[in-house]
Amino acid sequence: MNLMPKSRREVLKVLERWGKSIAELIEKEQEPILEIPSRTLSNTRWDPVKKILVLGEEKIHRRFLDLRESKKFMQTILMLKLIVEAIRQDVYPTIRDLYYNGKHTIFFEYAGKRVKENTWDDQDESNAVIEDIEVGTGLLREEMGLSADVKGKIVGPIIVRSKGFEIDATRLGETALSLPPNPDDLEIVKVEASYVLVVEKDAIFQRLNREGYWKRENCILVTAKGMPDRATRRFIRRLNEEFKLPIYVLTDSDPYGWYIYSVYRSGSIKLSYESERLATPEAKFIGLATSDIINYKISDEYVIAATERDLKRAQELLRYPWFQSESWKKEIQLFLKMKKKVEIEALSTHGLKFLHDYLIDKIHNKKWVE
Amino acid sequence: MNLMPKSRREVLKVLERWGKSIAELIEKEQEPILEIPSRTLSNTRWDPVKKILVLGEEKIHRRFLDLRESKKFMQTILMLKLIVEAIRQDVYPTIRDLYYNGKHTIFFEYAGKRVKENTWDDQDESNAVIEDIEVGTGLLREEMGLSADVKGKIVGPIIVRSKGFEIDATRLGETALSLPPNPDDLEIVKVEASYVLVVEKDAIFQRLNREGYWKRENCILVTAKGMPDRATRRFIRRLNEEFKLPIYVLTDSDPYGWYIYSVYRSGSIKLSYESERLATPEAKFIGLATSDIINYKISDEYVIAATERDLKRAQELLRYPWFQSESWKKEIQLFLKMKKKVEIEALSTHGLKFLHDYLIDKIHNKKWVE
Repeated sequence: MNLMPKSRREVLKVLERWGKSIAELIEKEQEPILEIPSRTLSNTRWDPVKKILVLGEEKIHRRFLDLRESKKFMQTILMLKLIVEAIRQDVYPTIRDLYYNGKHTIFFEYAGKRVKENTWDDQDESNAVIEDIEVGTGLLREEMGLSADVKGKIVGPIIVRSKGFEIDATRLGETALSLPPNPDDLEIVKVEASYVLVVEKDAIFQRLNREGYWKRENCILVTAKGMPDRATRRFIRRLNEEFKLPIYVLTDSDPYGWYIYSVYRSGSIKLSYESERLATPEAKFIGLATSDIINYKISDEYVIAATERDLKRAQELLRYPWFQSESWKKEIQLFLKMKKKVEIEALSTHGLKFLHDYLIDKIHNKKWVE
Repeated sequence: MNLMPKSRREVLKVLERWGKSIAELIEKEQEPILEIPSRTLSNTRWDPVKKILVLGEEKIHRRFLDLRESKKFMQTILMLKLIVEAIRQDVYPTIRDLYYNGKHTIFFEYAGKRVKENTWDDQDESNAVIEDIEVGTGLLREEMGLSADVKGKIVGPIIVRSKGFEIDATRLGETALSLPPNPDDLEIVKVEASYVLVVEKDAIFQRLNREGYWKRENCILVTAKGMPDRATRRFIRRLNEEFKLPIYVLTDSDPYGWYIYSVYRSGSIKLSYESERLATPEAKFIGLATSDIINYKISDEYVIAATERDLKRAQELLRYPWFQSESWKKEIQLFLKMKKKVEIEALSTHGLKFLHDYLIDKIHNKKWVE
């Protein structure tokens, strides 16, 4: 898989080539078949060296002349056509736009009867073929110019260039830079940071920005407000891969926060095919962990009782391949024993500036969970 | 109420003055009493000229020597102290930080017994006294330097200055400017826009930005991703009030979308005391409305059946003072009759560029609901 950002023109070529290969089979009066890496769980394996989930060698062969496959085949070709047209028209539809744009009813004869069928009935169907086109071509949907909600924002010592405009993220005052939908289109002109601090909560990001944390620490501050979107994950990966920046992730101390960390680090099981470009296996977790309740003396009145759902979620985390290290297993087991969770803001019981001391202690004294 | 942005130093003075007036009463051995405008529904009235909800003349008198009031009195003083300290320390806590920072247990003797009481038990209690301090002093929490999640982002012909840094929102490429937590601290240096387009959906904002909508139309593009936060509402209000820019709001066609519009336009009933500075009564709704399903020929297969909850919500909207115009009543009644909702993206059934035609038709031909 080519890891370099691709221009729109190159992306168009890859997609056209794929379509052309099908057209050629038809012209030669051969059966058109799409060969696509299989996205099933059985074709997903944990790569202990890369520390991410990767797809195996298994492929599916989507055949036009197989009744069970022909609808999916046609859906894939229809979606390919919509995406190619969007690029040619220079528009940037969302996956929901493509769902609506491609949805229509086809009428045909079958066994002597006139029957009708929708190209797709709901967005799950159209989304699935977009994922197939991603793994089939090795292109991310972001590279194909599909738009999506953007959650990520950044500030700190980094200069980027987008569509020819240079933006210096040290010169934003109390505002922040909202990432572009395709972070591979963003040229990273200059980075002078010592590390990247990713905070789960937007309001904490705002605090740290206003209180000059990144200036004092010479770091890039990032938030994606909870569960990260693909664009933020890809951007973090680029900062780590291309600029060798350490990545530290700060979340609440609960299974949801730890899962957010793991999405940055390793991706999700369902979308494992993306991990190769979106995950950052070197990302470090700097809390809050259950042991921080003890280590940072957060007294009982500031701690929240775990719910049944939290405990169930923690049990699930214990089964994920990326939580198999001794230190993670210890943390999760401690949580299951203590049944306590705690928010980042609970650090404020030690004073409104204690969050800074906490972060500096964690990062400079290498107190992370790996 | 003073509508000019206030510096941190001035804000501190207002808060200190409030605290001092209490201290003086105590020094004079008089009962300390806080006089605060009442935020009850009975003290809230619709101002048909301003087109917003405003608080009436009713005041509450929070007395230290009244057993029913003394806890609330002490909570208010405690919060005032925390906010004053935060400003003096130059930190920017969130309301959740203040909750944790101020939460502690007080032990005292009562009827011969040693009893204990928490300063507050949950964040609802600490938030309520923040609201009291807002109405008591006429300051917004944003002006007091409290941090919160920031949802708003902008692009387009506007130059702003934050902490001395000038940012030209035409020079952001495919990125966007994330608003600061306190938009009153943002100096608006130059605006050359013809209007402001507020879109409910972030992904649509991204599309329109990438497709050059704001350049072609010379407008400022804004999103707050669904329900707007206070900072985005305040910023929109400033663009309308200080620069006389028309504001157009685009949402899905469903009661939730219309409610989002109404929050920009008139605020919410619960927080009516903020409307005087956060609401933009001149904001125009440019769809999607139920009649747009007919007017823009969106066929049945792209339309979604309204749920019971949608219908109930629409009934509620009919009772809001700001939905009492003939055109709004007609729209909501049409919805209740047709029981159909539709997403912005459904416009893509007419082609991936149709959204642009739709917007231009709505705005330039004044097809809005008021």
